[in-house]
Amino acid sequence: MNNATGSYAPTPYTVPTRGRERASYDRALVHSILDAGYLCHLGFVREGRPVVLPTLYARIGERLYVHGSTGSRPLREAGAAPGLPVCVTVTHLDALVLARSAFHHSVNYRSVVVHGTATPVTAPEEKATVLDALVDHVVPGRSADSRRADARELAATAVLALELEEVSAKVRTGGPNDDPEDLSLPHWSGLVPVRVVHGDPVPADDLSPGTSAPDYLTAGSRP
Amino acid sequence: MNNATGSYAPTPYTVPTRGRERASYDRALVHSILDAGYLCHLGFVREGRPVVLPTLYARIGERLYVHGSTGSRPLREAGAAPGLPVCVTVTHLDALVLARSAFHHSVNYRSVVVHGTATPVTAPEEKATVLDALVDHVVPGRSADSRRADARELAATAVLALELEEVSAKVRTGGPNDDPEDLSLPHWSGLVPVRVVHGDPVPADDLSPGTSAPDYLTAGSRP
Repeated sequence: MNNATGSYAPTPYTVPTRGRERASYDRALVHSILDAGYLCHLGFVREGRPVVLPTLYARIGERLYVHGSTGSRPLREAGAAPGLPVCVTVTHLDALVLARSAFHHSVNYRSVVVHGTATPVTAPEEKATVLDALVDHVVPGRSADSRRADARELAATAVLALELEEVSAKVRTGGPNDDPEDLSLPHWSGLVPVRVVHGDPVPADDLSPGTSAPDYLTAGSRP
Repeated sequence: MNNATGSYAPTPYTVPTRGRERASYDRALVHSILDAGYLCHLGFVREGRPVVLPTLYARIGERLYVHGSTGSRPLREAGAAPGLPVCVTVTHLDALVLARSAFHHSVNYRSVVVHGTATPVTAPEEKATVLDALVDHVVPGRSADSRRADARELAATAVLALELEEVSAKVRTGGPNDDPEDLSLPHWSGLVPVRVVHGDPVPADDLSPGTSAPDYLTAGSRP
């Protein structure tokens, strides 16, 4: 999935006003950051005011799919031409950065910001493919080990699609950047790594006895 | 910090169109979700289009502070009366929810959505207090063990403030909600807990030899 080459073209919406040295338009980097996340934050405008909601998503090629509920406001508004202007942001926190000075404290992170116009997925076949992708995005391999959605469930599933065109990544790595005159201060400085890990699977109360947890649920950190 | 009582008053912006049974306006719950996060997602409107950016934040009482950079677009726009309409969202992922049916897959999460008008913090004294709070929000106890910001650094720090008034929390807990007719399917179902953990501290390359990591950096999950 991450053998993409080339870069997205920067636009006025994807060149940050600050921190340009941390920005990247590399397609493979953007894909890897998107694919490693669980939840995105979906932004849209309601009556002139911003709204930001967490939701599930999945990428298929150069298209991003965002999960919603039929009847929810952004889904309804996306149905009217030409679609709903959205901003979808995915962020991973990698480390806390402790400098000697309060001012230079920071965090290491990887983020992707996607600007675009979202439209609802209506074709049942595409919807079925997307629902599988949403499930596999959270637990790779899971869609093949579950009952597929029927026509009624597909009708009750709402998904927005947007193209990956106006896209940028931003990454901070490395240690603290203390000022030279602070290096002799007695305060500890460095990084505290932060990771997302899985615990042991917890069976549902009504799981049939003897049903063992599948191989794809091995505990560990998100790859 | 979490001994707050009472609730926020629901408004048209904080009553979800879907999933109302998961919504809460409980002040102590909102505070606990905000205080447990590292990064928020800040949404604002730029030329009619939504923008969502990850950034650091801290809560002091009923006021939320969001970190920015002087010169960045939202900070500049917030300086013009009456301020910048924003939506600040904080989300914690707690578990992956695996149902027998693809349709009922979900995640357990806790989120808070804050709507409001952000204004820049300009008083140097408040700014110094906020910078301490931002540092302590990421690493409790750290601000007292670092060099405080000087006047030049405070001038270079940009912080937005907004009141916690239009606020709601949303929480999903518990196992999968499979349909009765799916309970006998052979697929494993249950939860995969997800946690954020700290790794061992990594000293800065230029840390003076013999400087040991402080007690407040004990490895472990976020409380």
